[in-house]
Amino acid sequence: MTTTPEPPTPVDHLRSPRTRAALRVQNCLVDAAREFLRGEGGTEVRLPVIGPVTDPGARGAKQVDVDYYGKRYRLMTSAILYKQATLATFGSIYTIAPNVRLEPLDTAVTHRHLAEFHQIDVEVADATREDVMRLAQQLVSRVVKECLDRCASELAELGRDLVALAVSGETFDVLPHRRAVAALVDAGHPQDPHAEIDWQGEELLSRRAPRPFFVIDYPKGSRGFYDRESRTEPGVLRNFDLLAPEGYGELASGSERESDYARIVTRMRETGENPAKYGWYLDCVRAGIPASSGFGIGLERLTRYVAGLAAVWQASAYPKVPGVFSP
Amino acid sequence: MTTTPEPPTPVDHLRSPRTRAALRVQNCLVDAAREFLRGEGGTEVRLPVIGPVTDPGARGAKQVDVDYYGKRYRLMTSAILYKQATLATFGSIYTIAPNVRLEPLDTAVTHRHLAEFHQIDVEVADATREDVMRLAQQLVSRVVKECLDRCASELAELGRDLVALAVSGETFDVLPHRRAVAALVDAGHPQDPHAEIDWQGEELLSRRAPRPFFVIDYPKGSRGFYDRESRTEPGVLRNFDLLAPEGYGELASGSERESDYARIVTRMRETGENPAKYGWYLDCVRAGIPASSGFGIGLERLTRYVAGLAAVWQASAYPKVPGVFSP
Repeated sequence: MTTTPEPPTPVDHLRSPRTRAALRVQNCLVDAAREFLRGEGGTEVRLPVIGPVTDPGARGAKQVDVDYYGKRYRLMTSAILYKQATLATFGSIYTIAPNVRLEPLDTAVTHRHLAEFHQIDVEVADATREDVMRLAQQLVSRVVKECLDRCASELAELGRDLVALAVSGETFDVLPHRRAVAALVDAGHPQDPHAEIDWQGEELLSRRAPRPFFVIDYPKGSRGFYDRESRTEPGVLRNFDLLAPEGYGELASGSERESDYARIVTRMRETGENPAKYGWYLDCVRAGIPASSGFGIGLERLTRYVAGLAAVWQASAYPKVPGVFSP
Repeated sequence: MTTTPEPPTPVDHLRSPRTRAALRVQNCLVDAAREFLRGEGGTEVRLPVIGPVTDPGARGAKQVDVDYYGKRYRLMTSAILYKQATLATFGSIYTIAPNVRLEPLDTAVTHRHLAEFHQIDVEVADATREDVMRLAQQLVSRVVKECLDRCASELAELGRDLVALAVSGETFDVLPHRRAVAALVDAGHPQDPHAEIDWQGEELLSRRAPRPFFVIDYPKGSRGFYDRESRTEPGVLRNFDLLAPEGYGELASGSERESDYARIVTRMRETGENPAKYGWYLDCVRAGIPASSGFGIGLERLTRYVAGLAAVWQASAYPKVPGVFSP
């Protein structure tokens, strides 16, 4: 990674050969992801960008209201509710969906946050957490391999360290949250053991890693109501993050999902959500949704990692750095 | 076309074999479109869903405001401004983009309007209107052919009349707006010669057509500032609509674009738009954008036509019929 410039004007950004190269890498990556997910039996779906309710689990980020014929709707912060419901139509789905999260202004300097971004979102019925962790690993490995094969000139133009990138074929390490916390505290980083790992902590862990790795078993209370709680270890969620090496930090979040109506309502209440707001979703759950697991990979973050970009805004044609009034 | 049922509950809609079949046809269609556009040199891009300003040319539909860190942003009604600007990066682009337009409540019964929908959006630098009309015709013909080849069982399940659908290889007729108006008036339909053809008029023309056809040369005042005015016939725009046969009506709109800074500002003023709102876009225009032509095809409308659906909501997993509070 080189030093991080600030985003230039739209005119300069759109004309930059680096932007062109980064977007070509992103397209290669999307093609590879689609090809892989389809090969695994996935069906692509297109999900709403506004709805009566959205994912409440976007930590610290503000949801955006819209007035929908006089009723308050929300811009999607993630596709999670629709992903679970759509398993009634197809047993294995993926989507490449735009998301809007008004991240706090202090994230403008993380090089990792955009107020508007895309996710490669995957959900598989009757899959365990381990099944979709394997899927996420294979997806990232395949994407890296295809970009190395098909985008050599773009990666060269961007100055990507190809040796550091060659991860395919290697198994990603798995680090339980409590061990990640211990490692951070050892390193002098104050990490709350009951919370999500903060972005500075993620970056620290990421710098030490030789290849992408998983953090699993986040504590209850740190994530949304849809992350299934372990039946054998109460208080521990059957979820995971996937982090990139080289300091790039978080790429993906995922989990085994809660699909039991009563437990979902209980978890909503525990996380401060009013079940009455979730009418259509709870109707689907009551009618029966399959057990599932899934994840969402930040497309611009994955592009940043694969292309070796100093900041995530370089992976978007029209980047929205939190708090900046760009197009 | 059969009679139009109302949208069922999300649970019933998602579980319906007809929904599954329609979405499979849509995926086949999207694959064929991507393959075709890529073969023509197009690069896929991902564009914002919110921005400081959006397409003002969505006739009769209300734009949706969002509060973006204290500033008023808008949900995209179409990708047009971004499409023109992105030609600075790639000379031929396409995107499959979500759009939100709060259509008037009386469009709930047209079977053709959704408040949230997708467009296959295409823009080509240095192309004339005729170039992209050819592209649109080839795209629709290819899509129909691929769906006939690859989705035979889905089309059978949906009861599609395959003889009526077999349009590929035939040249689409071209009907100037003034002749379309005359034909409608002859048929007893009151059509304002200075306006967009209304949806009833489009449906009437569409019912008589043996295959998709173009209407061209809409009068100035009926469309957005970006549709280029003819230099030889003032008052006539270098634009087009593409209509499906069998009563399905409009599939696509497109035009040669205005790219001259002074003319764009004049056209904005003529159409009641304040140029000061369009800062980032006019900065791009002032720095120089290429002459171009392009179009947007309504994805759910194209799916409705190809799959032979009674109403456009049947082509969406989570349809938003104007005024109905669905997810």
